Amino acid sequence: MKYHALFALVLASSTVLLAASPSPAQAADDAVSAVDPRIGTGGAGHTFPGATVPFGMVQLSPDTTMTDFKHSYAWAAGYQYGDPTIMGFSHTHFSGAGHSDLGDVLVMPISGDVRLDPGDASVPGSGYRSRFRHVTEVEHPGYYAVTLDDYDVRAELTASRRVGWHRYTFPRDKPAHLLLDLRPSIYDYPGKVSWARLHVGADGTVSGCRMTRGWAPGRVLCFAIRFSQPMTARTLYNRETNVPYKGFRGPGNQPADHDAQNGRALEAVFDFGKPVAPVMVKASISPVSEANAIDNLDREGKGWDFDAQRTKAQAAWKSALSVIDVQGTADQRTQLYTALYHTMLAPTLSMDANGDYRGPDYEVHKARGFDFYSTWSMWDVYRAQQPLLALLRPDLSTEFVRSLVASAQNSPFGLLPVWSYQGLETWCMIAYHAVPVIADAYLAGVRGFDADAALKTMVRSATYGPYGDLADYMKIGYVPIDKEAEGASKTLEYAYDDWALSRMARAMGRTDIADEFERRSHNWRNVWDPKSGFMRARQTDGQFHMPFNPAAAAYGSDYTEGNAWQYSWYVPQDIPGLIAAMGGQAQFTGKIDALFDAKVDPAIFRNVEDISGLIGWYAHGNEPDHHVAYLYDYAGAPWKTQQRLTQIMQTQYATSPDGLAGNDDLGQMSAWYIFTALGFYPVTPAGGEYAIGRPFLPRAVVHLGNKHDFTVIAEHLDAEHPYVGSVTLNGQPLEKPFLSRKSVLAGGELRFVMQAQPNTTKAFQ
Amino acid sequence: MKYHALFALVLASSTVLLAASPSPAQAADDAVSAVDPRIGTGGAGHTFPGATVPFGMVQLSPDTTMTDFKHSYAWAAGYQYGDPTIMGFSHTHFSGAGHSDLGDVLVMPISGDVRLDPGDASVPGSGYRSRFRHVTEVEHPGYYAVTLDDYDVRAELTASRRVGWHRYTFPRDKPAHLLLDLRPSIYDYPGKVSWARLHVGADGTVSGCRMTRGWAPGRVLCFAIRFSQPMTARTLYNRETNVPYKGFRGPGNQPADHDAQNGRALEAVFDFGKPVAPVMVKASISPVSEANAIDNLDREGKGWDFDAQRTKAQAAWKSALSVIDVQGTADQRTQLYTALYHTMLAPTLSMDANGDYRGPDYEVHKARGFDFYSTWSMWDVYRAQQPLLALLRPDLSTEFVRSLVASAQNSPFGLLPVWSYQGLETWCMIAYHAVPVIADAYLAGVRGFDADAALKTMVRSATYGPYGDLADYMKIGYVPIDKEAEGASKTLEYAYDDWALSRMARAMGRTDIADEFERRSHNWRNVWDPKSGFMRARQTDGQFHMPFNPAAAAYGSDYTEGNAWQYSWYVPQDIPGLIAAMGGQAQFTGKIDALFDAKVDPAIFRNVEDISGLIGWYAHGNEPDHHVAYLYDYAGAPWKTQQRLTQIMQTQYATSPDGLAGNDDLGQMSAWYIFTALGFYPVTPAGGEYAIGRPFLPRAVVHLGNKHDFTVIAEHLDAEHPYVGSVTLNGQPLEKPFLSRKSVLAGGELRFVMQAQPNTTKAFQ
Repeated sequence: MKYHALFALVLASSTVLLAASPSPAQAADDAVSAVDPRIGTGGAGHTFPGATVPFGMVQLSPDTTMTDFKHSYAWAAGYQYGDPTIMGFSHTHFSGAGHSDLGDVLVMPISGDVRLDPGDASVPGSGYRSRFRHVTEVEHPGYYAVTLDDYDVRAELTASRRVGWHRYTFPRDKPAHLLLDLRPSIYDYPGKVSWARLHVGADGTVSGCRMTRGWAPGRVLCFAIRFSQPMTARTLYNRETNVPYKGFRGPGNQPADHDAQNGRALEAVFDFGKPVAPVMVKASISPVSEANAIDNLDREGKGWDFDAQRTKAQAAWKSALSVIDVQGTADQRTQLYTALYHTMLAPTLSMDANGDYRGPDYEVHKARGFDFYSTWSMWDVYRAQQPLLALLRPDLSTEFVRSLVASAQNSPFGLLPVWSYQGLETWCMIAYHAVPVIADAYLAGVRGFDADAALKTMVRSATYGPYGDLADYMKIGYVPIDKEAEGASKTLEYAYDDWALSRMARAMGRTDIADEFERRSHNWRNVWDPKSGFMRARQTDGQFHMPFNPAAAAYGSDYTEGNAWQYSWYVPQDIPGLIAAMGGQAQFTGKIDALFDAKVDPAIFRNVEDISGLIGWYAHGNEPDHHVAYLYDYAGAPWKTQQRLTQIMQTQYATSPDGLAGNDDLGQMSAWYIFTALGFYPVTPAGGEYAIGRPFLPRAVVHLGNKHDFTVIAEHLDAEHPYVGSVTLNGQPLEKPFLSRKSVLAGGELRFVMQAQPNTTKAFQ
Repeated sequence: MKYHALFALVLASSTVLLAASPSPAQAADDAVSAVDPRIGTGGAGHTFPGATVPFGMVQLSPDTTMTDFKHSYAWAAGYQYGDPTIMGFSHTHFSGAGHSDLGDVLVMPISGDVRLDPGDASVPGSGYRSRFRHVTEVEHPGYYAVTLDDYDVRAELTASRRVGWHRYTFPRDKPAHLLLDLRPSIYDYPGKVSWARLHVGADGTVSGCRMTRGWAPGRVLCFAIRFSQPMTARTLYNRETNVPYKGFRGPGNQPADHDAQNGRALEAVFDFGKPVAPVMVKASISPVSEANAIDNLDREGKGWDFDAQRTKAQAAWKSALSVIDVQGTADQRTQLYTALYHTMLAPTLSMDANGDYRGPDYEVHKARGFDFYSTWSMWDVYRAQQPLLALLRPDLSTEFVRSLVASAQNSPFGLLPVWSYQGLETWCMIAYHAVPVIADAYLAGVRGFDADAALKTMVRSATYGPYGDLADYMKIGYVPIDKEAEGASKTLEYAYDDWALSRMARAMGRTDIADEFERRSHNWRNVWDPKSGFMRARQTDGQFHMPFNPAAAAYGSDYTEGNAWQYSWYVPQDIPGLIAAMGGQAQFTGKIDALFDAKVDPAIFRNVEDISGLIGWYAHGNEPDHHVAYLYDYAGAPWKTQQRLTQIMQTQYATSPDGLAGNDDLGQMSAWYIFTALGFYPVTPAGGEYAIGRPFLPRAVVHLGNKHDFTVIAEHLDAEHPYVGSVTLNGQPLEKPFLSRKSVLAGGELRFVMQAQPNTTKAFQ
């Protein structure tokens, strides 16, 4: 540990840093190689191991299981580390979602005999799926490889923004095939594919679309595929067995299968003889049309140099990950850079090369002057992932905000995204958390969007009566549980979003709007029950909902993926008010202690699979309590924050495939990790300050998007020194455990001195 | 009769004609009022009674039944004259199709209580459908009205090209509603609607799309609707009861129903209080997108003057029907002008106001410099409907040919339309009869299209091996029945199409192509069986298919919707060759006599519902024999042609709702009527001459598209004078019963002198 302290001292000035540390390019290379995409691919992390570029439209990744959606929670990213077989490589995946979809355009290389069904995941050899061994896997940002043992095929994947690149090395002694299956889907069910079409053009380009009634219903995804060598034969199948309406006289008049097919169960097998060279595939996708997919492939998919594409993808990650330079142990660096990698997998580009995108009205729009991004898990990412990116990548935040505003303008309801992807809305989760995302970005200085237009969509989202019973909320100050499920959570989160809205409106000089929404932000008090000491759902008649059990959790209950214990802390906009309501600092910290220290049987949450990562009632695997460990700071007990963070970091994150305690949730779990490792956290997004926790890295330099560097140094940091002794900002001691965003944005140095015992006497009092 | 002869004499020169006859405008008005759209709405005619403009995209018409496609043959146009109830007014219908689809965007006015299901067609009062009485109906070209008795609502419909216009007069004492049902469809079945969406915009515009897996699978139709007065309330329903995948938590978060819905069973009710004025509706459609539907409505649906729109629609028909001026009895004029009306209901415009259209690749294309038309029942319309329009409307033929060529260029197979609508292909029926349509137009002097590009698509369509086993046809000269159903019919029709192709290629100086396809045109001989005296299916091994029964007919048998008796005449490109094969003129005419005079139990065809209108084996209700009555001409017995035409016209056409002996087939039955009534018929489309029959009108002036007038006069015409005594063309007697197309196109006068007895001695010998 001495080394670290010394190192930090020596490198304290950035001049010295540049002279003594590895060159930035090398550091970034190191960052790329530090990432381990396997983290989160086991357990409940729901990340995918495959190839993608930062915020890319294509996520080309192996799928081990696509099963009935009722049983497929564990396979939300198509891949579970414990599975023995791979059924193919598909082009779209969410990273860490709690509910799911996608798995589009599944390609499987096959040598020898072709089977047309994937077979049973638990019975290797029962279909076209193949056994594989982890020892053959290579996972790097932008690159994935595996050997498919049943076929003796080496499969390698890389990606550009809209194109997935495959290289398959087949054995020389067997006929090589590529199977394209447009039937399976992540979170599958019979009838999910509403329609599909498939066409082999005169030049050998395979293109098509499929429409699914999935999470975002009525979703269309189109694609275009080219092969590095001409196919020797092909067969296009429509595997649907019970087609009630075949046209007039059925097959016979219809041109044979090998040029085009339409239907609900399409599949194709492309033959390549016994190729002496690897067969390469490039496949573009488009949320708009087959023509656009072909155009995307034309523009972005030039040439057949797989290795060059891999290098490009790696370069994109090198550049993206270079925003933070970290020192630490190999595990620390792996955790930090993997977390950073995971924060850059959403939102994803959802726009064709020609600027076309599909909006929540299902219509095609043109993005003029910006890139349209989608994949918005708002309930998660507003907390830390988007605030992190607003610091690191304000250039992208501009695109994100413009995308959000455009989406609202295209929405049939005029609403900002809630949980949307490929431009379409699922309505998953609650509240209007695009509001704090935009407000946080604006207040962090992100510009380049029409703030007035943005504010208009924010107000619309916060005042649209039919959404989540906002009508009653606006009338009586809370969401009555007799009219709307999860009324307690909704009231709390609406009130916070209102506060974020008021902050931005005030900064824009729109006092009228600011005042109105600041008033609304007090509504959290309407669900506070001083008698029980919990936030509770209230009925239209004003009574609290009975019976009341603070331990009870269920989908559609009084709370959203949580119980009273977990939700009663949700007043990020008025923590002093909450402390007062709870009876003062002592009672407040005592109650947080009780939250963490409770003896809880995890089985109580078996019906709410998202609640995981339990420490007492505290559930780090889900989002509602992500700010709670930091709340001690506000009650004069920062050492308790430090202690809880140590506890959480030690128990909830690891470098193994099951190293995430719950769904990564499109980078929110990872963003929590990054902020926490750096020593501070945005408890109140769209607020002006961070709560200080404790650092977990000896040294980190954050290269802010505004070109300033913000350096965090932790002296004496090791396992025996988990508490903060003192903190200085640019040499000035901090008296309170808070750090203004302004000071971070200005660049500078935050220096912790760590110690063995909690500091209950100095500073931070 | 004296009057007619005198009249014809006096008016022989067109100068005199203009002076003495009613003004052309008046005559056209008369033509419009002579049309009776009820003809064909009963029995097997399958025409619709509603409002449309010539070749318009919208066919707004009442639907009496939309039922399971297995039972819905009689309701191919949505309406059967004998039905007691109307379930609503939908915006798309085929005119006279034998198989069907459509019935999109069904609107039903309701006063009082709303029921959400149409109910049982045989049980009035069981749902939202309403009783009606024919006495309340008004049917005119471009206008339809009816009183819905259950609701006391007067419903009036008119149309422009892309917009349906409705005017509903509600009773004053009950709440008025308009129900929009996106579930039912003509030729319906459970699961036919793959997806739909529905949205009410801020300005009250209702828009949406639905996708159906119907005859042309995967068809998308979008729409936009505006009301003449603001709705007072609205409810949008998704009526699907078993939705397996509702999104994460189902209803609650999702904004309430009244702004937008997505799903497979959408319905909406719009309320209008107790309106003092009629509620008007204008609804546009688009085969491309909701945005395009709105654009179509913006551009074409201005204002709320229903009567002005009705006048415009009528003016469009006046102009369209003015191509022929007819004299005759009221019934004769009604039959002729109704037939002419029916020839102008297909193909239909299938292009948005901005030029977008959907092609057979399901992608969106831009029509540059032409209007894209679809609804092509090629097997039917190449015979007489398209040849008629090439004479009357070469301006439209240019658009049609450009549409056909564009469609082939967009086709995933590179093929010309077979049976397509809204740009999409159904593959219904056989052969590549777009080839003779294009060749006939070209040889009739239609220009304005790229003939080289057209020829290329024609050759492609005639040489694409996988289509209807063209591969074997090209190799062995016939379609072997052991490999492909209906091999006898396919061989015959391919050979004719080949001949048409060769004719156009030769006219273009492409001798290479012309020679090749002329050779192919002899292939009819490969299915001629001199032993049995019938055309027969042959096996790959050269043997005729056994067992053989010249009476047998079945879908997918040796013949297409026919038997050996009906198909053995199909050599329009080499009738002398056929006569010789059949043993000479006497045997040939004897065999035609046997065809007509056979005693046939219609029940033999109960499994092939399209075979109707029987006279012996001759089936006028279907197309394969449409040229046969004229074949006597080629065997030196024109009086027999005349006699059979009298027989057919008297028994197969009438002015009653069941006045068509079979499906009008997109105007083919009607075009046969028009040519026959004028006294000549294109036995060999793309050939240079017409066969002369006998006229059925005392006088008709055909205003050709090339600005020439061709006048047909029949002296002494009446029921007692059904035979042609002599014919002169511009005063010169015709020695043979044929008329060159050149002489028709040059304009002039064809004068028949009719007599009581067959003329077996003079001229025409």
